[in-house]
Amino acid sequence: MSISSFHPPRRILMGPGPSDVSESVLAAMARPTVGHLDPSFITMMDEVKTLLQYVFQTKNELTFAVSAPGSAGMECCFANLVEPGDKVIVCQNGVFGGRMKENVERCGGVAVMVQDDWGQAVDPQKLEEALIQNPDAVLVAFVHAETSTGAQSDAKTLVELARKHGCLAIVDAVTSLAGTPLKVDEWQIDAIYSGSQKCLSSSPGLSPVSFSPRAAEKISKRQTKVQSWFLDLNLVMGYWGGEGKRAYHHTAPVNCLYGLHESLVIVQDEGLENAWERHQSNHLLLRQGLEQMGISFLVPEAYRLPQLNTVFIPEGVDDAAVRTQLLTDYNLEIGAGLGALAGKVWRIGLMGHASKQANIDYCLSSLKAVI
Amino acid sequence: MSISSFHPPRRILMGPGPSDVSESVLAAMARPTVGHLDPSFITMMDEVKTLLQYVFQTKNELTFAVSAPGSAGMECCFANLVEPGDKVIVCQNGVFGGRMKENVERCGGVAVMVQDDWGQAVDPQKLEEALIQNPDAVLVAFVHAETSTGAQSDAKTLVELARKHGCLAIVDAVTSLAGTPLKVDEWQIDAIYSGSQKCLSSSPGLSPVSFSPRAAEKISKRQTKVQSWFLDLNLVMGYWGGEGKRAYHHTAPVNCLYGLHESLVIVQDEGLENAWERHQSNHLLLRQGLEQMGISFLVPEAYRLPQLNTVFIPEGVDDAAVRTQLLTDYNLEIGAGLGALAGKVWRIGLMGHASKQANIDYCLSSLKAVI
Repeated sequence: MSISSFHPPRRILMGPGPSDVSESVLAAMARPTVGHLDPSFITMMDEVKTLLQYVFQTKNELTFAVSAPGSAGMECCFANLVEPGDKVIVCQNGVFGGRMKENVERCGGVAVMVQDDWGQAVDPQKLEEALIQNPDAVLVAFVHAETSTGAQSDAKTLVELARKHGCLAIVDAVTSLAGTPLKVDEWQIDAIYSGSQKCLSSSPGLSPVSFSPRAAEKISKRQTKVQSWFLDLNLVMGYWGGEGKRAYHHTAPVNCLYGLHESLVIVQDEGLENAWERHQSNHLLLRQGLEQMGISFLVPEAYRLPQLNTVFIPEGVDDAAVRTQLLTDYNLEIGAGLGALAGKVWRIGLMGHASKQANIDYCLSSLKAVI
Repeated sequence: MSISSFHPPRRILMGPGPSDVSESVLAAMARPTVGHLDPSFITMMDEVKTLLQYVFQTKNELTFAVSAPGSAGMECCFANLVEPGDKVIVCQNGVFGGRMKENVERCGGVAVMVQDDWGQAVDPQKLEEALIQNPDAVLVAFVHAETSTGAQSDAKTLVELARKHGCLAIVDAVTSLAGTPLKVDEWQIDAIYSGSQKCLSSSPGLSPVSFSPRAAEKISKRQTKVQSWFLDLNLVMGYWGGEGKRAYHHTAPVNCLYGLHESLVIVQDEGLENAWERHQSNHLLLRQGLEQMGISFLVPEAYRLPQLNTVFIPEGVDDAAVRTQLLTDYNLEIGAGLGALAGKVWRIGLMGHASKQANIDYCLSSLKAVI
């Protein structure tokens, strides 16, 4: 056996994530590793927390990055907030609502599903009906930006309904964070998770999360232990906590956090509102080009995510062959359909660092050449 | 708010991990991010699997890297193998045996503890007594190399006892993998987890694991779902599985895996046996120097880990002050005592890339200057 060092090809990442990672983030990841309790590292972690509070638009103390991908961030929210027997209303309009259901049930909770068609936003009226029919529900969970469809739901309204009926709200912001308006405190979201590899354009592997004081109180008053030791916030916060003293919990992914820090500094320097506007204006440019090619969108205009454009595969076009040719001949990655949408749609991401004019032009010209 | 890019100091890492990461591993982490389903990435994952099989000395199909630190690797083993009501004999001789107990209980299992003094190896006779007294036990768990004390247990004998009494064996190899002899197949270990940041000298954040066919069978025949969706091996293996087809489960930490791949190539190029010998001979050099300074070891010679030297803090020496001065004036990190050993010992690591003559000389001269 003799395996050599790996040298990946240089791709342009316009799928559903990971998105293009900028040279400065890659350079940050290659800086010398320090100990996870090193004072310099603790200072950096404090900065990551401050920057995450900024991108989440929150003052929540309990704001940090889970040391694992977005799926673990999701699990962190459910494992900490759901106690056995808790009834949770889960709004599903794509793949990730289904994963929420799995999480609720594996935590011993009871999931009440509110279904909307894939590609549609979550219907607030259906949620309200479910809340009225289930007065014993304690949590509402939904996906702000469905990565499987590119549909955006009205998080503010859905959280208002949850609160009106005495429920805490868990929100999946994996694809929305830093790409589309999201205001954790103003909208009174109780628990939220995201991923490092979407509109933050860092490498995959970290999941930014934030918990409101209400959520933190529910967690600290649990009757049962959190079933995951690794994700137990009562323990994790000893390490990420703001009081200067860091208790050892687990070894943080040091170099990954360097990368996340750099990607957050980039968002800070651009300005969050500017980043939102850039995603929107670039979406309009891509839309124009796609529509000129006769390609249409899955999601109604009112709910379309600017950072994830899900379009119908033109009739007679071979899904896999086109994506393979784009990757092989053009080093361009676009996303396939997931679940029920497999073979029917492509998902074209314009996320973070990848949301720029050059990528749009390249994607449109490559698609024209290949189709 | 204006936070700048982070530039860490350049440390020499001789604590209990992370250890020094080589320039080639850091460079690998900075290579361009590709999609987690990119054919080039899938090929690299296959190579990571092959290389992990080599360092674990196993043919186990179910060998891969959990996308999170060692604590999650531990949880992956327990969450998949422990079903509610399962009785598990946990041998504890340091901090991490205690964490195993937490894991068993959070999975709904019953932990029977076999205690040995911190700094001692696990006593096989005590394990056998516990196995005789608990004929209904189904699992035995112990730490091969206790990171909190630097003691090594006789994994081969302990696994033999487990097997003799019809139990599967879970082994913590976080600090032992690639530093000290470890033979998963020959010793018939059923489930094993490690960390990327110890003797592999990659950045923290990944946990290599391996499961025997017996363990895989127990997992596939569970009566209850694995309580963690993220760590459910029945799902994860759809992604890491060897049959060519990769089902999307979660987004792999792409650049971290580049780093792990490179660190494994380095071990392959050196040769595993050579790496074990290097750790041993460098340990003897460090020991000689420390003993000349009148510094003595916590762990009896027969059980001492070459890669983690736990020594008593000389009388009258201020633990924290010395470690701070080493870090501040010499950029040298050594480890503090954990748990019951806090303030009493230092843990001096000679792990992976950090196990070399230059580091030993530097550590000894710095210690002499500071004490």
